[in-house]
Amino acid sequence: MPDLKIQARTLKGFRDTLPELAIAREALIDRARSVFRSFGFVPIDTPALEYLEVLTGKGGEESDKQMYRFQDGGGRDVGMRFDLTVPFARFCAQHIGQLGTPFKRYHVAPVWRAENTQRGRYREFMQCDFDTIGSEHPSTDVETLLVIHELLLALGLEGFQVRVNNRKVLSGYLEALGLQDRGVPVLRALDKLDKIGEAEVAKEMEREAGMGEADARRFLELTRVQGDIDSVLDEVAGLVAGSELGARGVEELRGLFALARAAGVPEARATLDLSIARGLDYYTGTIYETFLDELPTIGSVCSGGRYDDLAQVYGKQRLPGVGASLGLDRLLAAMEELERLSSRPSTASVFVPFFAAERLGDYLALCTELRRAGIGVELYPEPKKLGAQLKFADRRGFPVALVIGDEEWAQGQAQLKLLASGESRGVPLGDLARVLRELPEIGSAGA
Amino acid sequence: MPDLKIQARTLKGFRDTLPELAIAREALIDRARSVFRSFGFVPIDTPALEYLEVLTGKGGEESDKQMYRFQDGGGRDVGMRFDLTVPFARFCAQHIGQLGTPFKRYHVAPVWRAENTQRGRYREFMQCDFDTIGSEHPSTDVETLLVIHELLLALGLEGFQVRVNNRKVLSGYLEALGLQDRGVPVLRALDKLDKIGEAEVAKEMEREAGMGEADARRFLELTRVQGDIDSVLDEVAGLVAGSELGARGVEELRGLFALARAAGVPEARATLDLSIARGLDYYTGTIYETFLDELPTIGSVCSGGRYDDLAQVYGKQRLPGVGASLGLDRLLAAMEELERLSSRPSTASVFVPFFAAERLGDYLALCTELRRAGIGVELYPEPKKLGAQLKFADRRGFPVALVIGDEEWAQGQAQLKLLASGESRGVPLGDLARVLRELPEIGSAGA
Repeated sequence: MPDLKIQARTLKGFRDTLPELAIAREALIDRARSVFRSFGFVPIDTPALEYLEVLTGKGGEESDKQMYRFQDGGGRDVGMRFDLTVPFARFCAQHIGQLGTPFKRYHVAPVWRAENTQRGRYREFMQCDFDTIGSEHPSTDVETLLVIHELLLALGLEGFQVRVNNRKVLSGYLEALGLQDRGVPVLRALDKLDKIGEAEVAKEMEREAGMGEADARRFLELTRVQGDIDSVLDEVAGLVAGSELGARGVEELRGLFALARAAGVPEARATLDLSIARGLDYYTGTIYETFLDELPTIGSVCSGGRYDDLAQVYGKQRLPGVGASLGLDRLLAAMEELERLSSRPSTASVFVPFFAAERLGDYLALCTELRRAGIGVELYPEPKKLGAQLKFADRRGFPVALVIGDEEWAQGQAQLKLLASGESRGVPLGDLARVLRELPEIGSAGA
Repeated sequence: MPDLKIQARTLKGFRDTLPELAIAREALIDRARSVFRSFGFVPIDTPALEYLEVLTGKGGEESDKQMYRFQDGGGRDVGMRFDLTVPFARFCAQHIGQLGTPFKRYHVAPVWRAENTQRGRYREFMQCDFDTIGSEHPSTDVETLLVIHELLLALGLEGFQVRVNNRKVLSGYLEALGLQDRGVPVLRALDKLDKIGEAEVAKEMEREAGMGEADARRFLELTRVQGDIDSVLDEVAGLVAGSELGARGVEELRGLFALARAAGVPEARATLDLSIARGLDYYTGTIYETFLDELPTIGSVCSGGRYDDLAQVYGKQRLPGVGASLGLDRLLAAMEELERLSSRPSTASVFVPFFAAERLGDYLALCTELRRAGIGVELYPEPKKLGAQLKFADRRGFPVALVIGDEEWAQGQAQLKLLASGESRGVPLGDLARVLRELPEIGSAGA
């Protein structure tokens, strides 16, 4: 290696994930995966790099601008994926014939966007998507809602609202107002309602969609309809009267909420919100956003919707789908703020100081035995002073230490020490696995 | 979206991971992680992209040539990581002061190398590394061996050999032969012994290290020492006589095998192999390779060693380490060949056909109830003919189907069908969770 010292640093907008955050993220992903799997979703993976033409023009101007792109050694124009949806559309066009439909997949993987870092965003982040492909049946819309519901519960979050809307209602209302050709800019503007407020949204509609002030105001009336779901839907049915699309949207929403209730979703957790639009152009039906009661301002932690034409650009087959994306980083930040994260920067639960210098073989044998009994054990690697080793254990947050010096080895017992209280008691070595497993401080291996 | 059809394809040397392989890979990574965690290793992550200068010149000429590199939008020279070791060295230089030592980390993440695809290699693959940093104590060398041993056992592989050597013995022998300045090319040549045989290795030593034929032959004698570990080490001690480094290497190996035996590793699974060298230049002590008894020809499935200077290029602190890398793709291929992989392309165990068209709410409620009882359930999304739905279930490998038509709903019971045998019996809906959990075909949620 060269003698020249190179500065150790990460690129602007990138960051290392230190153990504490990495442990929390792994736990979150594990829980999400087991919810996905419990519904029969299967994992897939796609490459980080794609042909540039596969990625460009799919996510809108912003995505194209933020994409990491280059020419590889073979002269190919390539790009790093900026989301998991566009590669999935390409994946479906290639493999869906072999895999068959319905096809339900989840995909947890990093994506890259050269975003403006001044907004505190990172240029590499994990996405966690699930989608159901090949069916337009309402069962898949309600299942998407159920997955979101079970995901949040599995993360220990009980106070949340999945807010639901339907693009057909929004488009139908535009039809009823004679503004059906303004869909894309109107919905993009509406998507910003939470952030910039009604007056600014109206201005953007006038500016970007060429709408008159009165039309913009009339359109925004839709978002103010209040009351219980059934009466709101009745009122909306009136507003979209004359638009077949709008009427279909109202019926889809009615069916969705009825099924959600039948499936046991409490009414407070699945609500109708006519003001949500989702920014992406490709949604065609149900759309979802999810807000935490205690932290509404962090925005939606799980969003998605139905799209009916995503894979078409790559193939002739019409491939309807519905899905959503769990906002891992946002959720981690939220759970940290709500103190729902364990902040222990260790994985094993039991710490074994190494201080009877001649007994390394015995320490190793004991640790192996405990690990095979399902208990995570970390052995300190050097026979330092006991105090220094226990300080290390404390800093890493181990709940339990097993202190075994020459005398204890001779007597065949360990001092079992609870590090939080300092409480200590003698336990015969042969009983350790049983006694440790019964401690509330200890989970199964590594937990 | 543009109307132009774009060809759906992956880049040369890249591939999608379809569900069957992705499920197997997830299971393998889960098991590896729980072994790492049971020893107290903690997860970390680093960015896919690094400053080019962080990556170049660290992995040798080959790595530099194969690196994906480009200029980002801000004019920075960046590269995609080609392994997890170089970013880890950079990570340690930045964070080890805050994290403290000893520091034990694992890292499972993709890396990219523009390799020659004609050799059947992929340009993106997962690496799975674990390392212990900050200690030169022999306890960390033997723990690395123990981790490899437990990893293979956890994957259900019992017939394997961890072959161990020590760079100090190889370098000490070169010293004893007066060839101490030829270390790098000699060990690179030796690393190819398995692939190209003794005669070719000798030729490469003559050519690349400028050794005489007699010296090359004498050096290779070391690799032919036979017998039980203790007598081999006695003989090697004689061969390296006069080299302090060599003598230290012999003592390290003696200590390592004694500790491994004390920790309960069977002698057949940890063997001394004086012919292994590892290709990388940075190893300075113990080195490991792991071979499966039934498939020796696929090569080492877990390799690593001790390195004492890795992080030095970025900082002044001397940071010794020892670790190894599990060859995920190679192991997956091996386990497939040994039929140790489940080939079921589904995650949930129970399939529920949807064919009483008016009962969707009831199906959804039942599925939610079963999932909350820990049973993975996939509901078919559309009320198609039962035969078509059961064919789907069969193709996806579901072991169990719950057939509930209008009549069964009215009677409050399901037909529980074992899809392998076709065997069927009626079970009251209220008993389903209990009965399903007791079936040998069903694990816990999603398993």
